[in-house]
Amino acid sequence: MNIRMIGRILSQIIGIEAVFLLPALGISLGYGELHTVRAFLLTLAIMAVIAGPLFLICRKSSRQFGASEGMISVSLGWISISIFGALPFCLSGEIPGFIDALFETVSGFTTTGSSVLADVESLSKGLLYWRSFSNWLGGMGVLVFLLAIAPTDSQGSGFTMHLLRAESPGPDVGKLVPRMKKTAVILYLIYIVLTIVNVIFLLCGGMPPLDAICTAFSTAGTGGFGIKNDSFASFTPYIQNVTAVFMFLFGVNFSCFYLLLLGNIKEVFKDEELRLYIGLALGVIVLIALNIHHLYGSWADTFRHSAFQVSSIMTTTGFATADFDLWPMLPKGLLMLLMIVGACAGSTGGGLKCARLLLLFKSLRRNIHKLLNPKKVQVVRINGRAVSETVVDHANAYLAAYVIIIILSFLVISVDGQTIGTNLSAVLACFNNIGPGMEAVGPTCNFSFFSPLSKLVLIFDMLAGRLEIFPILILFSSYSWKRK
Amino acid sequence: MNIRMIGRILSQIIGIEAVFLLPALGISLGYGELHTVRAFLLTLAIMAVIAGPLFLICRKSSRQFGASEGMISVSLGWISISIFGALPFCLSGEIPGFIDALFETVSGFTTTGSSVLADVESLSKGLLYWRSFSNWLGGMGVLVFLLAIAPTDSQGSGFTMHLLRAESPGPDVGKLVPRMKKTAVILYLIYIVLTIVNVIFLLCGGMPPLDAICTAFSTAGTGGFGIKNDSFASFTPYIQNVTAVFMFLFGVNFSCFYLLLLGNIKEVFKDEELRLYIGLALGVIVLIALNIHHLYGSWADTFRHSAFQVSSIMTTTGFATADFDLWPMLPKGLLMLLMIVGACAGSTGGGLKCARLLLLFKSLRRNIHKLLNPKKVQVVRINGRAVSETVVDHANAYLAAYVIIIILSFLVISVDGQTIGTNLSAVLACFNNIGPGMEAVGPTCNFSFFSPLSKLVLIFDMLAGRLEIFPILILFSSYSWKRK
Repeated sequence: MNIRMIGRILSQIIGIEAVFLLPALGISLGYGELHTVRAFLLTLAIMAVIAGPLFLICRKSSRQFGASEGMISVSLGWISISIFGALPFCLSGEIPGFIDALFETVSGFTTTGSSVLADVESLSKGLLYWRSFSNWLGGMGVLVFLLAIAPTDSQGSGFTMHLLRAESPGPDVGKLVPRMKKTAVILYLIYIVLTIVNVIFLLCGGMPPLDAICTAFSTAGTGGFGIKNDSFASFTPYIQNVTAVFMFLFGVNFSCFYLLLLGNIKEVFKDEELRLYIGLALGVIVLIALNIHHLYGSWADTFRHSAFQVSSIMTTTGFATADFDLWPMLPKGLLMLLMIVGACAGSTGGGLKCARLLLLFKSLRRNIHKLLNPKKVQVVRINGRAVSETVVDHANAYLAAYVIIIILSFLVISVDGQTIGTNLSAVLACFNNIGPGMEAVGPTCNFSFFSPLSKLVLIFDMLAGRLEIFPILILFSSYSWKRK
Repeated sequence: MNIRMIGRILSQIIGIEAVFLLPALGISLGYGELHTVRAFLLTLAIMAVIAGPLFLICRKSSRQFGASEGMISVSLGWISISIFGALPFCLSGEIPGFIDALFETVSGFTTTGSSVLADVESLSKGLLYWRSFSNWLGGMGVLVFLLAIAPTDSQGSGFTMHLLRAESPGPDVGKLVPRMKKTAVILYLIYIVLTIVNVIFLLCGGMPPLDAICTAFSTAGTGGFGIKNDSFASFTPYIQNVTAVFMFLFGVNFSCFYLLLLGNIKEVFKDEELRLYIGLALGVIVLIALNIHHLYGSWADTFRHSAFQVSSIMTTTGFATADFDLWPMLPKGLLMLLMIVGACAGSTGGGLKCARLLLLFKSLRRNIHKLLNPKKVQVVRINGRAVSETVVDHANAYLAAYVIIIILSFLVISVDGQTIGTNLSAVLACFNNIGPGMEAVGPTCNFSFFSPLSKLVLIFDMLAGRLEIFPILILFSSYSWKRK
């Protein structure tokens, strides 16, 4: 275990986070929010006191960097930025309890969007910006920008491969341009350009600039931290529709955008995952619309609400234009299905991912055929190409880990005594990085009533979901710490 | 596809069921329940009219019998006996709707024990006996007794292997004496002897003979069809404790009893599955007792209720001495966990099975290690022996199918508009062959309020759960019908 290298990476991640705190500090200064300014400055001082010496101690490290080191760096990196990112909320007194502040920050960086705040609008502007910005930073993963910004850290393909394996959302990383650094830059550019276009569309709808930027940050990261207490209910239909479309776009595998840029439109629409993503969304929008039409009167309103909620939940953003907890049970059930399915691999969204679902279905069908004809060798294919058995195995192991973590989390938070629906949907909403759940954690409610123990469990779930489970599990595996 | 052979097997299964209807007919005659006698006679006539010609047509069939034929025979066999077994309830007018009667009968044969009846005690004695007897018959699986009773059907190991693969509860069948027929006889004898011992213990507690027999039938099959409206609440602590112990015994892998008979005690207690089963049960009993002590006052009562409910739910029987839906959320959550875990493989219980859980955990751990060290070949071991990759794959595919079916079933029954807790626990209770769930399908409630569509979904779930999913899925796979 190359602990020095891990320490060095952590100190660099904290340094980068400090830089990203500066715009929030600037906004606080601009609005004259003195207690927030003090909190940001104190946070920066604490970061310097910890990260500085850490960097000096760990500066000289061996270059050996294997899978364990990669996974552990990623996990500890997310945990560190969450702890430091929580300090401004805590030190400013706007979220006094540290566990609450940590919950809010983890929820931000993991792009979950679950909140412990009942009154978001009373937050100071600097913190509101920092909260939305954490969604945006989380969206592409702290390690992708580490790669892009700190090129001297690149230790050859072994290093970047291991980091990307832990970081990249979805089972398949190999689709983009092979060279990892170029990949990071391209992903990053697509992400920034789409965010800017989103801001422009929101500005055209008459949204104030800071609101538009915060909203676009939360949309791009598929995070879902809103700036209004009623999430999206009070915005105009135009703003709602723009956001529904952009949420959906940020849930698409970014390699599709890259292919589009290359003019390869035909291949994009032959992509099985994209087809599943679009088909499932359209199907559920229609089904829900049929079931909630009596609540909204006009079909235009019905479809707007249905499409917004489907786009928001499926991409694991978590904005809401309507209190879907008041909808009939079938629409609620369908939304819970989408919570589990999630967005596309290689997007900023969470959940199981459409690609993994496709893989599980195909592997299941293969298993049925194998049962009937054990001798025939059968390969799982996606987009016409054979998928390696390691990837299929990994998807199956992922599902097992997913189910086990959900059941155990459900059990622990049951101690608080909420209903089955509340507990289950809270775990699903956190683990799949969505935000709101059903019943007591529905879109008009928040997570503040949970006990500190339950909040810690949900924090674990958010991190495990965002990091695709294994890097977090590896932290707890003695096997990874023992090896030389 | 050897359709004639399937037809012949079905006609024989129906013939055997007709024989098993005779004791119920006798009891109805003895109690002078004329409308039930008429219903039984009519049912026998219908069975003769259908099974007779079917047998004559399909008598001469080729001996080719592959995996598809085996699986399809098993599935259609269970569906047939359920349909014919439902007729007495329907024709006697005691459960007027056919779907309700079918639900009750499938629930019986699959040893689920979910009921549509609010007032069990008003059933005529003949039907009450038939209802409990269906639990007992279901317990060992119709095909095991087909093998034992109709030896001329045995087409060599290919035939029996395929049948047993579909039928035997749990991932591993190879533990008992290799020869299949001998296996069936041994399993059957253990089952009968344990049932008789159970009856004797109940008689010693002062239970009337017919009640004792019916109760022992439902216990042995881990079915859970009670003979009282309040299930087990009004019985004496002695009867409750006896039943708790016997439920637990019937949830043990029967090969353990066989090893005990051979005097191989040491090997029995080294069995990893048995250890998990006992350890999990004891742990949950203590945890629940600590959480419900305030409801019952004395620790003796607390532990009796806790142990009874744990034994009942974990073995997927479904009896209840207390309305556990009124317990705090943690005990309810723990019971839902046990619903999913289920009993041991090779027992009459349902659920995922402890052996499969063990396999999933070990395969997950292996996958984590593989991620860190891709080159090292790592084998999953249970009881010190390497498990083949096919078995590991199958367990993973099983979990995927399990999750997918639960989610889809949950969605369809959501149309009825019950709560998340009701819908989820109803599906879990049916799919894992338990009986009662939580909230509106709790132990003091019944399943009658569901729409016919939801009942059909739950019927499918009960069958899929009992037959370990794949034989039922194969019915719907065009692949299995196409092959020569």
